[in-house]
Amino acid sequence: MRQVNIGIIGLGNVGSGTLEILAETADQIALKLGFELKVTAVCSRRVASKPIPAALGPVMKTPDWREVVCHPEVDIVAELVGGTTVAADIINAAIDNHKSVVTANKELMAECGSEIWERAIRQGINLAMEASVAGGIPIHAVLREGISGDRLVAIYGILNGTSNYILTEMERRGDSFETVLREAQELGYAEADPSADVDGYDARSKLAILAALAFGERITPSDIFVDGIRRITPIDFQYAHRLGHTIRLICAARQTPKGLILSVRPALIRRSTILAGVLGAYNAVWAKGVYGEDTFYYGRGAGSRPTGVAVVSDLMRVAREIRSGSPERVSPFAHERLGEYTPIPVTEQKRAYYLRFRVVDRPGIIAALAGILAEKRISLEAVLQEPCETKHDLPFVITVEPTSEGAIREAVERMASLDFLLEPPLALPMEPSL
Amino acid sequence: MRQVNIGIIGLGNVGSGTLEILAETADQIALKLGFELKVTAVCSRRVASKPIPAALGPVMKTPDWREVVCHPEVDIVAELVGGTTVAADIINAAIDNHKSVVTANKELMAECGSEIWERAIRQGINLAMEASVAGGIPIHAVLREGISGDRLVAIYGILNGTSNYILTEMERRGDSFETVLREAQELGYAEADPSADVDGYDARSKLAILAALAFGERITPSDIFVDGIRRITPIDFQYAHRLGHTIRLICAARQTPKGLILSVRPALIRRSTILAGVLGAYNAVWAKGVYGEDTFYYGRGAGSRPTGVAVVSDLMRVAREIRSGSPERVSPFAHERLGEYTPIPVTEQKRAYYLRFRVVDRPGIIAALAGILAEKRISLEAVLQEPCETKHDLPFVITVEPTSEGAIREAVERMASLDFLLEPPLALPMEPSL
Repeated sequence: MRQVNIGIIGLGNVGSGTLEILAETADQIALKLGFELKVTAVCSRRVASKPIPAALGPVMKTPDWREVVCHPEVDIVAELVGGTTVAADIINAAIDNHKSVVTANKELMAECGSEIWERAIRQGINLAMEASVAGGIPIHAVLREGISGDRLVAIYGILNGTSNYILTEMERRGDSFETVLREAQELGYAEADPSADVDGYDARSKLAILAALAFGERITPSDIFVDGIRRITPIDFQYAHRLGHTIRLICAARQTPKGLILSVRPALIRRSTILAGVLGAYNAVWAKGVYGEDTFYYGRGAGSRPTGVAVVSDLMRVAREIRSGSPERVSPFAHERLGEYTPIPVTEQKRAYYLRFRVVDRPGIIAALAGILAEKRISLEAVLQEPCETKHDLPFVITVEPTSEGAIREAVERMASLDFLLEPPLALPMEPSL
Repeated sequence: MRQVNIGIIGLGNVGSGTLEILAETADQIALKLGFELKVTAVCSRRVASKPIPAALGPVMKTPDWREVVCHPEVDIVAELVGGTTVAADIINAAIDNHKSVVTANKELMAECGSEIWERAIRQGINLAMEASVAGGIPIHAVLREGISGDRLVAIYGILNGTSNYILTEMERRGDSFETVLREAQELGYAEADPSADVDGYDARSKLAILAALAFGERITPSDIFVDGIRRITPIDFQYAHRLGHTIRLICAARQTPKGLILSVRPALIRRSTILAGVLGAYNAVWAKGVYGEDTFYYGRGAGSRPTGVAVVSDLMRVAREIRSGSPERVSPFAHERLGEYTPIPVTEQKRAYYLRFRVVDRPGIIAALAGILAEKRISLEAVLQEPCETKHDLPFVITVEPTSEGAIREAVERMASLDFLLEPPLALPMEPSL
């Protein structure tokens, strides 16, 4: 019984987890598949210094990825390099050499997934990318197979573990964003340059992939409104709790009568929702379907071994398909559309909003703010103020009834010139359906 | 491009949901697959009175299932009849006629899944059963593909919606089991004979299937310890809350150094665990893997349309495989084992326990109970008593440190003869890992 041969390019965090699992579970893999997966070649710029598990047997080691994608015995290339430059060359070369490809690359698949899939289909090879979104959560398998019979209307997610860790630690301990971020950096949970995580760009790439799969549209990250968590303060959690809510960086893709609305932004969600129970570096995805209604998926968002599970599961599935002859494929991205894809600007979204102000206290503040809201036809719902010792930096909150994001932005802009404000108001949507 | 033809047998709850989804989403299905799914034949004992969506076009209707399984154009038979008699005949006949099979039948797959899979593999056809466990949760796709690369060590689940509805309503309103059950029966959520739901048998069938898939073992329901929820009272929720816990009917399959321990029983779980947020008729599955760690899946456990999504998703997957030529298959049940399968009796399980007593109050009660626990070398942890008006029926709780289920059973048996007890003590394990 012929084995299926794998070439692994990239021996960083994910690559080493993948090798570890392949080495330690070879018996189980062979039993589940009915044949063996063999690691034939590995590639890393510093391959000589990388430990390769002895249980894998003889493996070709090379610092040159071309040797792997051209290797005549390699059936599947696992691209675990990341980034959008060399990784694209590797994947394209592998496809052109009729190798199936497994990738963990969210950035590349978010930007060029559709083109890469079309190339793969033309060559009749398979492409798998479970590890590209929410490492330990098998959300691709769920969307591709598990609930493929449903018609999805919305996907919500917590897709960046670092920002979720920061928010939930701020909530738990009452510490500032800066304090928790610094700690996370010291512990190695956050990068020295944290922008991709805390400004929402990492989550945006993942949402672009998930939304493309869920709605069959060609969605790129630039279609998605993004806002990060830098402006959230401990006081925001206090106010959110008084409202029965908490704050999370929420990725959302919702089908509306006019089209899809896509955003990554901090939002208030009810504390009683199961999504509010996603703490620390965990990720989660909430799918809403016309027929299956709500389903929810939770797991590790990253990490060498959880992401390695995703890569190994993909390798097993692709290997099974290689053995059974290539099926006809339809791109999971941008399959021909049911209707025209119109990304709706987030300004058209209607939500209740939480507006948090920091002011120098004096008479007339509420009147001035309420006046601007009235001018924009926004209905005030509640004014909340926690006890505060100083009048020089007084935080308080106004919540307003559902209104368009556009109206809120205009109101916030008008407020910017008010001289009692210490900083522009923080406006966060309140998600009603979570 | 040739379509794939489907015969549907059984037009009850699940069958009608399946037809509805197939009719309403035919466009989406064709785009996702690249070819059409066509309902060629439907069968029901009262087929004449069943509404068939007009959008399906001409469909053969018959009250005789043999006409469907012998129909020369039918590629896939969906068995949505349920039960273990006629359903077994239908599935076996379909397999023998080289039809692939999709089934929603938990009882049959729990009892005979392994044999049916072997028959299917011999005939080279495909078998799919996503709808058999936790309707709306795609847990089969997750175990088969999404996390197939992990080595699982435990599966926990809330797999019976009716009993979860009853428990969470008892918790929310403080009403008795009998009151909530009667209401659920009036609302049609519970059967006139509720035994399968409230005594744990329905959940046990589902756990047998999940555990077989997760551990690759031939597990039948009789291997699984089962206990129902009839003895839970509102006072138990009060005590559980004081301990920071709640009570749910927990299905558990855990790998231990000696073998698998399998049980369906009410247990105390921490209120802070995400599993405690599963309310009403929802289901959930918690998987623990060596590499991927914790993942969690949540959704509707039953219902015409959520279960229909599972059936339609299976039909799509099986149809795709039919078009691409039959792959080699390995039974997901009882594939050749990594080691010998030894079901460990639940009496060997070590847990902290919650013991609830109802007594006629008088001096010496605690001394007598503590004496028996000491005799069995069980360490008492806490004694809790809520304020109570009567001395004739006084509930109170003792919690004990982790000990074997065997020791607890012996202690409870010894206590049965104590004349101050109004009923045998209720002993519930406290699940530490949830």
